[in-house]
Amino acid sequence: MPEFLNLLPPDESLDKLLRNLPDPQPATETIDTASALGRITATDLRAPHALPEFERSTVDGFAVKAADTFGASDSLPAYLTLIGECPMGAIPDLEIQATQTAIIHTGGMLPPGADAVVMLEYTQTLHHEGHGEHKEKRNKNSVDSVLSVVNPEIEILRAVADGENVILIGEDVAKDALIKTKGSLIRPAEVGGLMALGFTQVEVVHPPKIGIISSGDEVVPPEKRPQPGQVRDINSYTLASLVSKSGGEAVIYGIVADSLDAMKSAISRALDECEMVLITAGSSASARDMTAAAIDELGEPGVLVHGVNTRPGKPTILGVCNGKAVIGLPGNPVSALVNGTVFVAPLIRRLLGQSTTELRPSVSAKLTVNLSSSAGREDWISIKLIPSPVGGRGAGGEGKYLAEPIFGKSNLIFTLVAADGLLKIPPDATGLSVGEIVDVILI
Amino acid sequence: MPEFLNLLPPDESLDKLLRNLPDPQPATETIDTASALGRITATDLRAPHALPEFERSTVDGFAVKAADTFGASDSLPAYLTLIGECPMGAIPDLEIQATQTAIIHTGGMLPPGADAVVMLEYTQTLHHEGHGEHKEKRNKNSVDSVLSVVNPEIEILRAVADGENVILIGEDVAKDALIKTKGSLIRPAEVGGLMALGFTQVEVVHPPKIGIISSGDEVVPPEKRPQPGQVRDINSYTLASLVSKSGGEAVIYGIVADSLDAMKSAISRALDECEMVLITAGSSASARDMTAAAIDELGEPGVLVHGVNTRPGKPTILGVCNGKAVIGLPGNPVSALVNGTVFVAPLIRRLLGQSTTELRPSVSAKLTVNLSSSAGREDWISIKLIPSPVGGRGAGGEGKYLAEPIFGKSNLIFTLVAADGLLKIPPDATGLSVGEIVDVILI
Repeated sequence: MPEFLNLLPPDESLDKLLRNLPDPQPATETIDTASALGRITATDLRAPHALPEFERSTVDGFAVKAADTFGASDSLPAYLTLIGECPMGAIPDLEIQATQTAIIHTGGMLPPGADAVVMLEYTQTLHHEGHGEHKEKRNKNSVDSVLSVVNPEIEILRAVADGENVILIGEDVAKDALIKTKGSLIRPAEVGGLMALGFTQVEVVHPPKIGIISSGDEVVPPEKRPQPGQVRDINSYTLASLVSKSGGEAVIYGIVADSLDAMKSAISRALDECEMVLITAGSSASARDMTAAAIDELGEPGVLVHGVNTRPGKPTILGVCNGKAVIGLPGNPVSALVNGTVFVAPLIRRLLGQSTTELRPSVSAKLTVNLSSSAGREDWISIKLIPSPVGGRGAGGEGKYLAEPIFGKSNLIFTLVAADGLLKIPPDATGLSVGEIVDVILI
Repeated sequence: MPEFLNLLPPDESLDKLLRNLPDPQPATETIDTASALGRITATDLRAPHALPEFERSTVDGFAVKAADTFGASDSLPAYLTLIGECPMGAIPDLEIQATQTAIIHTGGMLPPGADAVVMLEYTQTLHHEGHGEHKEKRNKNSVDSVLSVVNPEIEILRAVADGENVILIGEDVAKDALIKTKGSLIRPAEVGGLMALGFTQVEVVHPPKIGIISSGDEVVPPEKRPQPGQVRDINSYTLASLVSKSGGEAVIYGIVADSLDAMKSAISRALDECEMVLITAGSSASARDMTAAAIDELGEPGVLVHGVNTRPGKPTILGVCNGKAVIGLPGNPVSALVNGTVFVAPLIRRLLGQSTTELRPSVSAKLTVNLSSSAGREDWISIKLIPSPVGGRGAGGEGKYLAEPIFGKSNLIFTLVAADGLLKIPPDATGLSVGEIVDVILI
């Protein structure tokens, strides 16, 4: 189209936008760590103490001085005297002297004098009962069998090194170590790590408010029965879902009439109340031009990018009004959702102060057809994943799924409802070949 | 270890468990579609009406009878008479007769008599003003320029086929079509599809309650300062996070003493109140045996799998008590979280009635080292993803990240905190090679 010349691809368009945004100053709040899943840390976190704070056994077995086991083997065991059992959850009230040992359980605290643990299955017990000697030949040594005999001698059948089968003090994390930088996503593992160190509360970033404005004289709220010529508002809700999925808080401003004044007034209110504003413009060229005019009039520097070299989504508008991003998305629901994924998610990450690049969850699959694309343009294809009849090949997962494009006009929301994900054909490619292994980004 | 002979790999273990579970009868609730992101549909959903309900233009241009454009080209345009403009959001009050046309905007309703739309850029306008004729040669035809002239004739420079640039009635979705089966995940696209059809509320599955019990005499609540020999409870919170991420509702029962009676009483209460019970057993063999005994005594058929051929996580126990799954996970936090991911997420999907196989979000990456593994055993390796210095290759994403294993004892929670994901080495592989492209499952 003549109105879109020399368009930048999405990555460069986004970079241009980011260069015009100030560093985010996210608001923070302190919440229970138990409810912090999916939130973003607001501060660097350091370990208040070492983890563990005492030497722990990683196996069920016998606490020993490693030196006492040197050279031990099946044919030439080391003989140690059992002096007791280490309790769980308390300091052992015994001390291992040379040629002594004590029973220890997984997770138990190593007794003073011990520096290693021999696994139960590499030990045997000598029973001195009555006259004569009964030897349990390589039977499984169990805690019960060991404790049921008087003053047993333990046969050690394997040598252990100093520290073997032991977690050392601070081996999980050292005191004062930086455990998470500011801007980290709290996943189940982080919840566990924080709890392990006693952080039952954590300071996190407040979800940034993202204003959402729909426009179009043909658009009515979803609860209304559309008259001929009218359609229900989809974009307010798909974008709100996307905002929520990305860690933001959606503020829906409803449907604004196709007039410059109404548009300016709605955007202006949203800019006051939110950190970023999304507008799904009416679909026509004149509606888009009006959106761009409103952005230009509401703050500096205004529109930075008008039209992006991508399909769907070419008519996307990226602007900044006085430090806040304002994004005009195409009115058609597929374009709005696809370009929301491309542009909105990274901008919310930035507002949250997220420190790492986004790992886009995807699934590897084998493409079922040839796909062509214009050089310079980034294409996003809706994909249905089909379990492969051949089955998976292994760790790579290649061939576990077939990637079957869903063709259809780009404005049909049910092509996305039917899709499992999106396939990106980057600007420098002119297509993809049947049989190629591709990453399908889950939606 | 002698106590674990002939172990099944995780997939077969899970299958054995699933065969012993009755079909789930999930409770349902009706909620606002706007808040339904991430929930699971409880019923099949059919379209109450076609979408769209009227023929819509997909472009800005001129509504025509396609037959009037046949053979039209730059050198031999078709000449049509402009009779007006189609309004947005209403039925056009004009009818296209032969050789007539009307302006139409993207998303507008096709006027009676028209069956196709010619894009604005493939048209020119003849201005009959005063004497003589002024022809705008291939200038962009804009709505304003067209409307500013009196009784203009439109030159059509391209032929269109019947239905071209038009979304037909029911082309997005037909009346009564099955739009989503029961058991479907509601993503942003589904929120949009539901709203498009006027479903402002939707019946979804109630999150199943999953009881979580920790045990171990050495374990104290996270808010307590551990004494020597004690550690804080991590597993209750990592598993609760995992449950919540998987769509369940976690019910934490706290830390239970290492005694059969205490364990039985806690599991029994959780079985009464929840759909599934997770227990992180004390780490020692005797604590695991006690958990198994408790499961066996509390219902039929009791323990089905005691020990799984996986690392970490071998001591995992899978059981069923009177129709409800009871899972004993190893006490060490990495095993508990990894095996929670392997076993708990699929079981919650089942309780939710999810109809499709799980698409595990992952990222393709190039392995930085050789990894060996025992045949028959499934290994899960913690992986740090590192942006590749070479950069991405394109659509497949191969080489965009390097997959660097994090080595460390399997009980260090901070190996998972440092990891981006997990790499599975399947039972039939004996290892993976440096440079191989692998799927790293995001955690």
